[in-house]
Amino acid sequence: MDKITKVKQYLDRGDKTALRNFLQKFHPADIAFMFQGLEFEEKLSLLTLLNFEKAGSVLDELDPGERSEILSSLKPEVLSHIVGAIPSDEAADILSEVSEEKAEKTLELMEEEEAEDVEELMKYAPETAGGIMTPEFFSLSEGTTVDDAIIALRAEENVEMLSYLYVVDEGGRLCGVASLKRLITVEGSCRLKEIMNRNVISAETSIDQEEVARLVRKYDLRALPIVDEGGKLVGRVTVDDVMDVLEEEATEDIYKMVGTDDEELSKKSILNVARLRLPWLLISLVGGIVSARIMKGFNITLENVIALAFFVPVIMGMGGNIGMQSSTIVVRGLATGRIELGHVWGVLFREIRTGALMGLICGAVVGIAAHIFQGMAVLGAVVASSMFIAITVAAAVGALMPLFLKSLKIDPAIASGPFVTTANDITGLLIYLFLATSFVKYLE
Amino acid sequence: MDKITKVKQYLDRGDKTALRNFLQKFHPADIAFMFQGLEFEEKLSLLTLLNFEKAGSVLDELDPGERSEILSSLKPEVLSHIVGAIPSDEAADILSEVSEEKAEKTLELMEEEEAEDVEELMKYAPETAGGIMTPEFFSLSEGTTVDDAIIALRAEENVEMLSYLYVVDEGGRLCGVASLKRLITVEGSCRLKEIMNRNVISAETSIDQEEVARLVRKYDLRALPIVDEGGKLVGRVTVDDVMDVLEEEATEDIYKMVGTDDEELSKKSILNVARLRLPWLLISLVGGIVSARIMKGFNITLENVIALAFFVPVIMGMGGNIGMQSSTIVVRGLATGRIELGHVWGVLFREIRTGALMGLICGAVVGIAAHIFQGMAVLGAVVASSMFIAITVAAAVGALMPLFLKSLKIDPAIASGPFVTTANDITGLLIYLFLATSFVKYLE
Repeated sequence: MDKITKVKQYLDRGDKTALRNFLQKFHPADIAFMFQGLEFEEKLSLLTLLNFEKAGSVLDELDPGERSEILSSLKPEVLSHIVGAIPSDEAADILSEVSEEKAEKTLELMEEEEAEDVEELMKYAPETAGGIMTPEFFSLSEGTTVDDAIIALRAEENVEMLSYLYVVDEGGRLCGVASLKRLITVEGSCRLKEIMNRNVISAETSIDQEEVARLVRKYDLRALPIVDEGGKLVGRVTVDDVMDVLEEEATEDIYKMVGTDDEELSKKSILNVARLRLPWLLISLVGGIVSARIMKGFNITLENVIALAFFVPVIMGMGGNIGMQSSTIVVRGLATGRIELGHVWGVLFREIRTGALMGLICGAVVGIAAHIFQGMAVLGAVVASSMFIAITVAAAVGALMPLFLKSLKIDPAIASGPFVTTANDITGLLIYLFLATSFVKYLE
Repeated sequence: MDKITKVKQYLDRGDKTALRNFLQKFHPADIAFMFQGLEFEEKLSLLTLLNFEKAGSVLDELDPGERSEILSSLKPEVLSHIVGAIPSDEAADILSEVSEEKAEKTLELMEEEEAEDVEELMKYAPETAGGIMTPEFFSLSEGTTVDDAIIALRAEENVEMLSYLYVVDEGGRLCGVASLKRLITVEGSCRLKEIMNRNVISAETSIDQEEVARLVRKYDLRALPIVDEGGKLVGRVTVDDVMDVLEEEATEDIYKMVGTDDEELSKKSILNVARLRLPWLLISLVGGIVSARIMKGFNITLENVIALAFFVPVIMGMGGNIGMQSSTIVVRGLATGRIELGHVWGVLFREIRTGALMGLICGAVVGIAAHIFQGMAVLGAVVASSMFIAITVAAAVGALMPLFLKSLKIDPAIASGPFVTTANDITGLLIYLFLATSFVKYLE
């Protein structure tokens, strides 16, 4: 019998004590997973059986869509206990999803100090260093002696915070980091400022979360200290937050490539899903209608040599494919830092040469096919050269577009989507039909 | 003056001491980054200036393509010092990239104990838990008293290993985990087996690295203990290894969507890049040639009503787009665990309904356009209904394909690539041309 069936049985029997004992064995992430198989009322009953801390952690693990539904039916009286029991960064995330009025009421009912922390965090934009940091950290002033530092460390019960010992000056500004190993090996009367490493890697609150993730990954950090504009230490981003960011950003990039976004999975109605996806489809659709109009313009050419029409889809399609490859290589390269804006020309040149090479091969194959189908060498030559030009142009456009968007500070990920494909479709079609029209007298 | 120019100056002047001092300030990741702007000989000179540990860390940070070039010109005598100075999991990664003969020679020259660790690790497949784990861990037997455990903890100098205290039985089998907090709050005479948590989350060495990453993310772990088939603790995977896995897997999925892979950026020649990308392009190309052949088969219909040809690209293209959207949503959902194989029918049904809705809208738009272009209501109706059917089928195929591949244990990511698009292109074309032929007498 699986976990969900078991939970449902307990709920049907109304055996709260047994259910509470059963749930105790599970991690919040597992309980959040069980929610997928439960009715709305059952989810609420389950939450009320858990202690506040565990209920909060379960809420934190839920998908945004599911969570907002549950949050809307929790009263501020209950919510204040739940968010009061979890780390303030998680509390801020949850409260930013309820109505302003409800958030205010909830904050009023919480302990003052905790509420202030949460309110402070809610001021930061969600996808910045400030938005993902936790304001709990362990720091000592630079004048502290090593002996005093060791005593302070022993008193600190949250072990997770001890990955790094941050050192601040009298204004609370971050000025160094000391390793625990170093503390043990120097004399007890040394001051922290004498032994700390002043090259401490940190980020400001307004930095984008993608940049934060890049720093943590690059330097293999377990936590990154976050400072305000004045350099004052205000929090830290831990490596598990960074993992969430990495996955979020990768998913976002992938979804943007096909013209939707990661809200999609949390949308309940297909109307909402369709609304998310339609903008891209409509760009493609308009592109397709423009293509139809262009073909109508080359009516006479096509009527004279109907065989020309047979190769329109393959030329348009291959241009689209190559453009998508080039743009994706560049977009992902920019996202992971393997391509820097400084190397633009090298990347562009390489994509164009690769495109030309593949255009040569694909052009030859399709040209031979055209020749065999229709027994017309000229048709083969027209199809082959159109394919070659269309593919080379598509590679150039595909590589250039994300670099161009990035230099304008627009997210390059959208370049792999509809714009490049539609632009390349139309360009490929025009190249083909112009070439065909020029040679139409040899084709008839 | 930027860092790279400065390094080049020092090298030109041959001022080794100054360069060594300059490099000391930088993190290995920064030095690896500088390599991008240096010539091959300069890279080698730089490496020899660093101490072995730092040189090893720089090697570990380099891109695989760049690294293999450097490794091929390092002699076993030097290599043995470098890999001997870094953690054995990194050493194993590096040695698995050199020739078997060279790896053996290098291992012979290393300290015996270290060499054994590395050799042991090299046995595991690279993308498994065993392949990414580090064999250094901290564990105590279940009979240890709390007092003795605290003494052992104090003696341990590698602080990073103290995230978790793993408890093993007399056979070295992992049987629990104890928190440091718990140690401090219970009596010193307690034994670990009385206070440890027996629900310890672990993974076997043969588990895929993607699964390891999922466990670490789901439970917000800082390290995951790895056991052999007998349950014996043999290593642990830390959260920074998991970040690399997450990024690797996301990049792999994205590149697979467009028919290439992440080796691409480390390939030097465009011939090699083209060879990577061509298989996908050739599938598309063959699909395109098949489409041309199909259109030739419907020759008479198209010659009678040339306007039908104008709408072939838009119908094929929109089917391809929707299929790509559906398959991508499902592929990424499976990768992040938001879609489980158990919910297959719900997902499929939802994609089909969404597809039908969007097909209705796109069909109406293109149908009206066709009617306006040609002044033929029947053409509009044929185009609109073909588009509707083609899009609905494409959504179903797109959603079904990755689920089907996953159930066969094939990586579903390839489903977003050429197969689905090509299949949908041909299906859409056939639907359109059959419908058009049935109504051709009303179209002439």
